[in-house]
Amino acid sequence: MQQIKLIKRPSGTPTNEDFEFAEAPIGEPAEGEVLIRTNYISVDPYLRGRMNNVKSYVPPFELDSVITSAVIGQVIESKSTHFEKNDVVTGGLGWQEYSVVQESEVRKIDTNLAPASAYLSVLGMTGLTAYFGLLDIADPKEGETVVVSGAAGAVGSVVGQIAKIKGAHVVGIAGSDEKIEYLKNELGFDAAINYKTEEIETALAKACPNGIDVYYENVGGEIGDAVLPLLNKFARIPVCGAISAYNNKEADIGLRVQSYLIKSSALMQGFTVGDYASRFKEGSEALAGWLQAGEIQYEETITEGFENTIDAFLDLFQGANVGKAIVKVSDIE
Amino acid sequence: MQQIKLIKRPSGTPTNEDFEFAEAPIGEPAEGEVLIRTNYISVDPYLRGRMNNVKSYVPPFELDSVITSAVIGQVIESKSTHFEKNDVVTGGLGWQEYSVVQESEVRKIDTNLAPASAYLSVLGMTGLTAYFGLLDIADPKEGETVVVSGAAGAVGSVVGQIAKIKGAHVVGIAGSDEKIEYLKNELGFDAAINYKTEEIETALAKACPNGIDVYYENVGGEIGDAVLPLLNKFARIPVCGAISAYNNKEADIGLRVQSYLIKSSALMQGFTVGDYASRFKEGSEALAGWLQAGEIQYEETITEGFENTIDAFLDLFQGANVGKAIVKVSDIE
Repeated sequence: MQQIKLIKRPSGTPTNEDFEFAEAPIGEPAEGEVLIRTNYISVDPYLRGRMNNVKSYVPPFELDSVITSAVIGQVIESKSTHFEKNDVVTGGLGWQEYSVVQESEVRKIDTNLAPASAYLSVLGMTGLTAYFGLLDIADPKEGETVVVSGAAGAVGSVVGQIAKIKGAHVVGIAGSDEKIEYLKNELGFDAAINYKTEEIETALAKACPNGIDVYYENVGGEIGDAVLPLLNKFARIPVCGAISAYNNKEADIGLRVQSYLIKSSALMQGFTVGDYASRFKEGSEALAGWLQAGEIQYEETITEGFENTIDAFLDLFQGANVGKAIVKVSDIE
Repeated sequence: MQQIKLIKRPSGTPTNEDFEFAEAPIGEPAEGEVLIRTNYISVDPYLRGRMNNVKSYVPPFELDSVITSAVIGQVIESKSTHFEKNDVVTGGLGWQEYSVVQESEVRKIDTNLAPASAYLSVLGMTGLTAYFGLLDIADPKEGETVVVSGAAGAVGSVVGQIAKIKGAHVVGIAGSDEKIEYLKNELGFDAAINYKTEEIETALAKACPNGIDVYYENVGGEIGDAVLPLLNKFARIPVCGAISAYNNKEADIGLRVQSYLIKSSALMQGFTVGDYASRFKEGSEALAGWLQAGEIQYEETITEGFENTIDAFLDLFQGANVGKAIVKVSDIE
């Protein structure tokens, strides 16, 4: 089988040269283990951080080792009493066509409730990231203005829709006219700004006539800067991502936040979804309920073929995806 | 009598030319009013912000009007049933030798508990600012590392002492060797850094071998930047002041915080003491208790003479004061 290893720590934006396809034998499950065929691989911006050799909330990837991320797969051989052949499961697995894992490393998913790939997006880590960042940190109230950057992405699109459910005035920021139309016409955002073609300060001021109560931060950089002068008293900023800075080789320099936070008694709270591990059940149930009720839609950008996994990851930094970026490796049988 | 008016909005660092001494008649109290002789005037960094014509948490000063701040004075004529001649009171009053005010604008203070001037410092707004920012936002736990900038100032010196009471490892940052000695030898800080003579990143790393759990931000700028890489998981940053930026003519540019906040799931919370108005009694009582028990010391830099009020204010931006900067206008009788 094929697998993908990190062979160089990227300098700036990652390139194909940082990765390597390798051949490996398909393993044999021992007692308490299962053999899984990979169906879907999640490619995510946060993985870029793990490619650096620095301390962060998850340890860095080892060089010359297989990259891991959230994966959906199907059990094709089970030596575990918890799983049967053909069970569809999810877990943090390697970028490879087959995996042998301990039964404790994966959990079954219910493909009657939603297609399997949804467990990598709206019902998976990205949906939970949207849910806890928005509701636990920002807790938007009816009539408040919620701005979300990376709004057409896997996290941002769910953030905006939950904010709409909560009765907020929702403004999305994204990078193409196609995404802007999607946010306004498909997801029901009140306004959406194309930061590549519009002057962001002016467009934000126009879209937020009552100021900004919540800014869900996915991108950082100049967009994050532009929000600061518009913050209302007691504004909340869940800081989820800063994709604009992930490939920086130099320090990320911009507007210092201190004076703005003081003026508005505003809060910025960095977080990762792992901080809420004890509450995943609550979040998953809420998201599944909204999904079944048709109150949340989700989009996936699915790249076909294991051989295209690296490209799908690199595309994230070009803003190529709408919704969750996923690689389809094989069909579920 | 003499009074001080703002006649120009300062561009950058304020100068004597932005202010004017003017003559005015001493008013006559009407029914429900009192005539007050000014004893002490509080000069504070936050007043700089009110000299700009921009929306903030307090409205800007009007041009050609008398500047106001916290003042201690003595009632010399009362037409109020609430006050008697010689009562010592505090309130937000003008920079002038006498004031006529409504009885609701001032409150009596107890000069048996502490000297009157303490009600402008440790028992006044600066003490409360220290109290709520540290305990409500940061809530330091025993053994955690608390860093405070502007540590020899009116707010910072109280922050550090409360953090010591709570059992934290306390590191102060200040701008002269005299202040460093004061923090270590008089106030019991565990370490203190002179940012003017030491390389701040190196000195911070050395003083905080276990990282930083709480950073009480008074100054912003490069000191605020230097703290970010040392933040521990779930670090808290009460953002109280950014004196380094108050006189900036250009945007305040430095290290963007987003990536650091995400890595550490860290919080930054801007605030002003007014956010805690409903809890002032709790804070005042706690501070008075520590003061009487000798657990908190405070220092004042008292400038004698109303004619030196402007200079005392301008000195704040040179870091000239240890503890609270106060102008003594007249004796209490």
